[in-house]
Amino acid sequence: MTSYFNTIAPIAFEGPDSKNPLSFKWYDKSRVVAGKTMAEHLRFAVCYWHSFCWDGRDPFGGDSFERPWHHMADPMAAAKAKADAAFEFFAKLGAPYYCFHDRDVAPEGNTPRESVANFHAMVDVLAKKQQDTGMKLLWGTANLFSHRRFMSGASTNPNPEIFALGALQVKEAMDATLKLGGENYVLWGGREGYETLLNTRMGQELDQMGRFLNMVVDYKHKIGFKGTILIEPKPREPSKHQYDFDTATVFGFLQKHGLEKEIKVNIEANHATLAGHSFEHEIATAIDLGLFGSIDMNRGDMQCQWDTDQFPNNIPETALAMYLILKGGGFTTGGLNFDSKVRRQSIDPEDMFLGHIGGMDTAARSLVIADAMITDGRFAQITEDRYAGWNSDFGRDVLAGKLGLDAVAARVLEHNVDTRPVSGRQEGIENLLNSFI
Amino acid sequence: MTSYFNTIAPIAFEGPDSKNPLSFKWYDKSRVVAGKTMAEHLRFAVCYWHSFCWDGRDPFGGDSFERPWHHMADPMAAAKAKADAAFEFFAKLGAPYYCFHDRDVAPEGNTPRESVANFHAMVDVLAKKQQDTGMKLLWGTANLFSHRRFMSGASTNPNPEIFALGALQVKEAMDATLKLGGENYVLWGGREGYETLLNTRMGQELDQMGRFLNMVVDYKHKIGFKGTILIEPKPREPSKHQYDFDTATVFGFLQKHGLEKEIKVNIEANHATLAGHSFEHEIATAIDLGLFGSIDMNRGDMQCQWDTDQFPNNIPETALAMYLILKGGGFTTGGLNFDSKVRRQSIDPEDMFLGHIGGMDTAARSLVIADAMITDGRFAQITEDRYAGWNSDFGRDVLAGKLGLDAVAARVLEHNVDTRPVSGRQEGIENLLNSFI
Amino acid sequence: MTSYFNTIAPIAFEGPDSKNPLSFKWYDKSRVVAGKTMAEHLRFAVCYWHSFCWDGRDPFGGDSFERPWHHMADPMAAAKAKADAAFEFFAKLGAPYYCFHDRDVAPEGNTPRESVANFHAMVDVLAKKQQDTGMKLLWGTANLFSHRRFMSGASTNPNPEIFALGALQVKEAMDATLKLGGENYVLWGGREGYETLLNTRMGQELDQMGRFLNMVVDYKHKIGFKGTILIEPKPREPSKHQYDFDTATVFGFLQKHGLEKEIKVNIEANHATLAGHSFEHEIATAIDLGLFGSIDMNRGDMQCQWDTDQFPNNIPETALAMYLILKGGGFTTGGLNFDSKVRRQSIDPEDMFLGHIGGMDTAARSLVIADAMITDGRFAQITEDRYAGWNSDFGRDVLAGKLGLDAVAARVLEHNVDTRPVSGRQEGIENLLNSFI
Amino acid sequence: MTSYFNTIAPIAFEGPDSKNPLSFKWYDKSRVVAGKTMAEHLRFAVCYWHSFCWDGRDPFGGDSFERPWHHMADPMAAAKAKADAAFEFFAKLGAPYYCFHDRDVAPEGNTPRESVANFHAMVDVLAKKQQDTGMKLLWGTANLFSHRRFMSGASTNPNPEIFALGALQVKEAMDATLKLGGENYVLWGGREGYETLLNTRMGQELDQMGRFLNMVVDYKHKIGFKGTILIEPKPREPSKHQYDFDTATVFGFLQKHGLEKEIKVNIEANHATLAGHSFEHEIATAIDLGLFGSIDMNRGDMQCQWDTDQFPNNIPETALAMYLILKGGGFTTGGLNFDSKVRRQSIDPEDMFLGHIGGMDTAARSLVIADAMITDGRFAQITEDRYAGWNSDFGRDVLAGKLGLDAVAARVLEHNVDTRPVSGRQEGIENLLNSFI
Repeated sequence: MTSYFNTIAPIAFEGPDSKNPLSFKWYDKSRVVAGKTMAEHLRFAVCYWHSFCWDGRDPFGGDSFERPWHHMADPMAAAKAKADAAFEFFAKLGAPYYCFHDRDVAPEGNTPRESVANFHAMVDVLAKKQQDTGMKLLWGTANLFSHRRFMSGASTNPNPEIFALGALQVKEAMDATLKLGGENYVLWGGREGYETLLNTRMGQELDQMGRFLNMVVDYKHKIGFKGTILIEPKPREPSKHQYDFDTATVFGFLQKHGLEKEIKVNIEANHATLAGHSFEHEIATAIDLGLFGSIDMNRGDMQCQWDTDQFPNNIPETALAMYLILKGGGFTTGGLNFDSKVRRQSIDPEDMFLGHIGGMDTAARSLVIADAMITDGRFAQITEDRYAGWNSDFGRDVLAGKLGLDAVAARVLEHNVDTRPVSGRQEGIENLLNSFI
Repeated sequence: MTSYFNTIAPIAFEGPDSKNPLSFKWYDKSRVVAGKTMAEHLRFAVCYWHSFCWDGRDPFGGDSFERPWHHMADPMAAAKAKADAAFEFFAKLGAPYYCFHDRDVAPEGNTPRESVANFHAMVDVLAKKQQDTGMKLLWGTANLFSHRRFMSGASTNPNPEIFALGALQVKEAMDATLKLGGENYVLWGGREGYETLLNTRMGQELDQMGRFLNMVVDYKHKIGFKGTILIEPKPREPSKHQYDFDTATVFGFLQKHGLEKEIKVNIEANHATLAGHSFEHEIATAIDLGLFGSIDMNRGDMQCQWDTDQFPNNIPETALAMYLILKGGGFTTGGLNFDSKVRRQSIDPEDMFLGHIGGMDTAARSLVIADAMITDGRFAQITEDRYAGWNSDFGRDVLAGKLGLDAVAARVLEHNVDTRPVSGRQEGIENLLNSFI
Repeated sequence: MTSYFNTIAPIAFEGPDSKNPLSFKWYDKSRVVAGKTMAEHLRFAVCYWHSFCWDGRDPFGGDSFERPWHHMADPMAAAKAKADAAFEFFAKLGAPYYCFHDRDVAPEGNTPRESVANFHAMVDVLAKKQQDTGMKLLWGTANLFSHRRFMSGASTNPNPEIFALGALQVKEAMDATLKLGGENYVLWGGREGYETLLNTRMGQELDQMGRFLNMVVDYKHKIGFKGTILIEPKPREPSKHQYDFDTATVFGFLQKHGLEKEIKVNIEANHATLAGHSFEHEIATAIDLGLFGSIDMNRGDMQCQWDTDQFPNNIPETALAMYLILKGGGFTTGGLNFDSKVRRQSIDPEDMFLGHIGGMDTAARSLVIADAMITDGRFAQITEDRYAGWNSDFGRDVLAGKLGLDAVAARVLEHNVDTRPVSGRQEGIENLLNSFI
Repeated sequence: MTSYFNTIAPIAFEGPDSKNPLSFKWYDKSRVVAGKTMAEHLRFAVCYWHSFCWDGRDPFGGDSFERPWHHMADPMAAAKAKADAAFEFFAKLGAPYYCFHDRDVAPEGNTPRESVANFHAMVDVLAKKQQDTGMKLLWGTANLFSHRRFMSGASTNPNPEIFALGALQVKEAMDATLKLGGENYVLWGGREGYETLLNTRMGQELDQMGRFLNMVVDYKHKIGFKGTILIEPKPREPSKHQYDFDTATVFGFLQKHGLEKEIKVNIEANHATLAGHSFEHEIATAIDLGLFGSIDMNRGDMQCQWDTDQFPNNIPETALAMYLILKGGGFTTGGLNFDSKVRRQSIDPEDMFLGHIGGMDTAARSLVIADAMITDGRFAQITEDRYAGWNSDFGRDVLAGKLGLDAVAARVLEHNVDTRPVSGRQEGIENLLNSFI
């Protein structure tokens, strides 16, 4: 086994003043913040696909990275070389978790059985590597979007035989996740959507998807998987319009299919912005609805309305996300997965480290800020004061459903006074936020 | 009573070859299409606000229209002059319905009681005018977004006293809608949302909104209003982020608050595109979820990501919307309200007619196209063929929940064959659509 | 030589009532419109890249088309098989022109000399095929964006050796275009831009690009190429920000480098909308600035802010583009190239025909509409009337520079009257447009 | 003269640890950075329009601020009260400059002469107030977009009499700017654009605008105004499409009309993002083209694609802008004008201070960061190394135009080697940037 990262030493915490690009400035895994270590709070995961499967290709150009495992003749040997590189990277970086799709770790075979056999073989390799390195699996998932057979969807495919091929992959990926001690199982429906309504029965496809998810949940219970099932919303790309548009859409869908207690969401920053929301909006929505599960940490480029999956680096933005998560109680089975990739021009192995270091430092620094914001208490006080009226008798009666529309209206006419609004103080609050950056 | 449109004769159908701009080329109200007259199908409504309340103002400039009723000293006299102009317009245009907000038709008073009194007086004026002209009310609504007291929301306001002031307006507007024979009641929450999450309890605000809507539904039943309660989704503007983002979001919210059988949606084309959807997506979603109520017909400008509310004029786009509506059974209590306004530079009374004529002709022509598409049958056949596999025993068993994930997976491994995908034929279907234009 | 399209007969004009999807409904190449045949007006070209090089891949999935020439071991044999298929397609479709990049038609070699040799060999193949079929070359171009060496730009690369490798390709592609009788030569700078300003000297890179284009123009004159040199603007994708953002940006750049008389633009519909303009805006701008050269006909999806390159099918939009082109005198060396691709799910050879047929019919129908609009004269009259004041003595004196700011101001104060604005009549004009659809 | 801000004491620098919201945490006007005081570097200006003319209105709601001067019967008395409040605010805030439109400070009269008289009277008031307070004028401008007469443009109006009315206003505003010691004169063409090309002669309108600007420049020289003439680009809003779309567009236009040495640009952050650029892109472009003049400091909301004009608060983004400005030599006649407004819900006088304090602190902190980035030297070294090849003999010969396309191509074939690309190191550089935040 050859080292792909032989020029890189394990990444150490060196503090904010270090000029060593290959060190952590903020992420000190043992530092205690709000009663837990940074490692316990942040539960960082590295994803397999962007760093080990993608070759730098984009719609206008080919392989720029030239990773050796992309240029090997034997697919299983390539899969093993890729796993060697991945676990070497994980260990040197020092993130405790990783995530993968079935097809990231094992090649598609010529038949369903061969694909399953390839996957089983590679799951054994991963199990061994987890044991050797202490790495843990945050979540597994199945790739139901890259192969041409899924071009019109997997669970929402017009052909039930393709639905079945997807079911096989998900069943196997769930088994693997259980075997590898994964803490969650994720479903992202990149092709569960449509290109044109003219050839699509949207209602029927959504019913198919509802059925599929019920099968997933039943199977989870059957095999005794204790982790969380997560849906990852995204509004579009690759499909023109995807069914899991955003958290609110997923919530409506889950309720309709009786799944709102069984499934949570994995929220991605870049998917949030593509859907016309902010990352913090999606997190707050999920927390309010009891759906918050895990996050895919990255950022989009607001000049580019496609999924750029860049490493997060804007502290004020990530601090807001972390503030909501920490205030909401933090992660349980979920974690912070870097669904982030280096730019196509960042072709060196070193760049993979630089990207992750930046992302981990950004998250660690945001955690420190979020803790300070909570401890300070002024933010909490602002909303406490602003909504104080709802603690009055009248406010409580309204929320308790004791007063009808006509009773409330009659009360207004009786008093016959207007109510003056109060400043929302947005600029002052934003200044306050900056005082923590 | 002076005529504001004295230079304009009633608009007549003259057919596609007429060169008279002030005539209908396609909307022939008595023409029978798919078993009903165009008037019965389309149920056109003119809105009060854009044509009679707006003065041409935009964020960078003031009154360009100089309507006389905007320059009268006495607010009630102005309201009456406005109603005179509005009903003269309605009658000359020949649309059977209109829609209004409470504050469109009657001025805000100095106290709640005075506002109610003004409104009652004007509702009597409207009732008389309906009787005189035969005009009908498609829907009424209350303006809970223009006055500064609602700057932080009405039902979602941090202050329950402002919630109460909103309740009074809605109660009165519902009473008025009942009295005037309105066929629906609409709620649009322009300020039900937030500017920054830093000062907002989103979860609590949504609970307040859920409570408010339950009060509305209870009151509807109490007074015996038989029309439909409609929510109008919009993602943003005026708020940075509004709670009724789109139809799918509204669906999740209604289910959470037990209202999905009680409330439907009023879908606006421009709101659909602002939310990252197409008009036809929102219509199809609403129909599939059993929420389809009514439409606000207009269009946005895809170069301008704000609500331009232009009159619809792109036939291929409106034809698709009409095709879905007609296929879905058409309107029941709902209709086609022109929430559309002439451009700020279209300052002449004549321009108001030209805008509506264009919109009505576009809709009428789209209805004819939609009927032809349905009659032809090829579109229906395309989806019938595409989803045929779900009528197989296996397909039916899956949808019926008879097979678990493992059973489906086992079946795949047993057969051990892949399934080839079939062309989606998008370009061919789009060519077919154009053959109907 | 095997036929790839053996099930498809040559496409014939059958008129609007034909139900044969593989026929033209509007494009009748010999039909005379405004004094020329449709073929002479429209100068249709098929592009090599989308139909013969792309395999259906997108950022989330692989080859869906499975064209045989993408699965051949020998690259030159594959290039020849691809050329066979391409020319079979061109001939059956009946478009008179085609367009290509150097790397579309011939594979990259292991060294610069081998790449040149491959290209020379394939240019001979193309020359022979042109002779056999009568096909003509609308334009040639060089692909300076797909290979990893160009990941940071070609003429704008930080390394002059990579600039030089780009220069070799362009020189060879220009020679080939001349040899094949090409009527234009195009430059599209997909990587001429930046990912982050933090590592970029924008000013220097633009100077490099200015130098490169001057070298191209000098070489054109040296070899006696009589065609037009065209730049194709695009704002972003693949780069985060591209230098040839839009027509107005290109105009400023050309003037700065003394090239505004030497180079024109090739305008793409989808690039126009990505840049925040309409297709007709870019065409009008180019015509006004004397830069109009050729068009890449396609459309974007306004829900997807990336380059979807779909076949045009919205008649009202394409009619407006064609109206401006026809009013501006039509094409000279330029033409209408379909830089359009079938959707990833349209995997059958037949779909390639359906896409092009739809595009050609849309353009032909738009030409007929544009001619009717011009002949009718009302559109011209509207602007004639609207700007009539500039034909007054005062208007002419102002435009001629005879009056200074103070003289004009003094004249206003002397008369001391305001001037009332006149309605822009937008809705009426849009209705008029629809009467031609 | 009554105090509008009597509850607010002059704002003092108290340092980052102060918990007083009404103090500066970073802006210490006398602190020396890179050889000049913060006040000298930043040249802060407060704008008249957002803080003193706007009443909180938006397209869906009315006056929320209830400033007393908006509710006075006599327009000239109101203008004086407004000036009192404005100068009280300026003095208490401690920004050295202000900016205004003619109509911000003086009301439109019933005739052109009356408007001029009103303006002259108020300019005298302003002169006196400048003398009393030491405030200086950064720039003046004329409002040619709010009055209905300009609804179809001012210099680009179809009617030359309206062009003339605009000329009068600009002549007077230039005179006033000279008289008040203004350091620049700005032109923003909010209505210089179009709503539909169907009624617009874009080429002619641009020629009118070119003429107008030449008249402005001639008049500047005639009256001996030594300041800079600035154009402020914006892509749209209020117009659907504005002619001064962005800096690159303005550059092309200026060259065409021989004005590129006479006019520079005033760049606004929010206008940059609306045009599909970043603020730093527009600044870098202007600097490279020799057009950089001044900035309108604010930010947009990337979820809202309209001009939100919020106070800047994202340090990493503003730091990048300040880095480019400082590296480019800083401001000469220009400065940093807050074209920013508090949110509609920020209704208290105190909110106006909080907004400006946040913006000034953000800019001051960004200046400190920018200075550290320059002093550190690593950013400069990165580009120096990256472009080193252009300092070779070959690189210099190419840029000097000594080699033709064929000579460069021949050289490649002679060497016959490829050139490997080098990592762009984007993530590493972004991490480096964050180490300065």
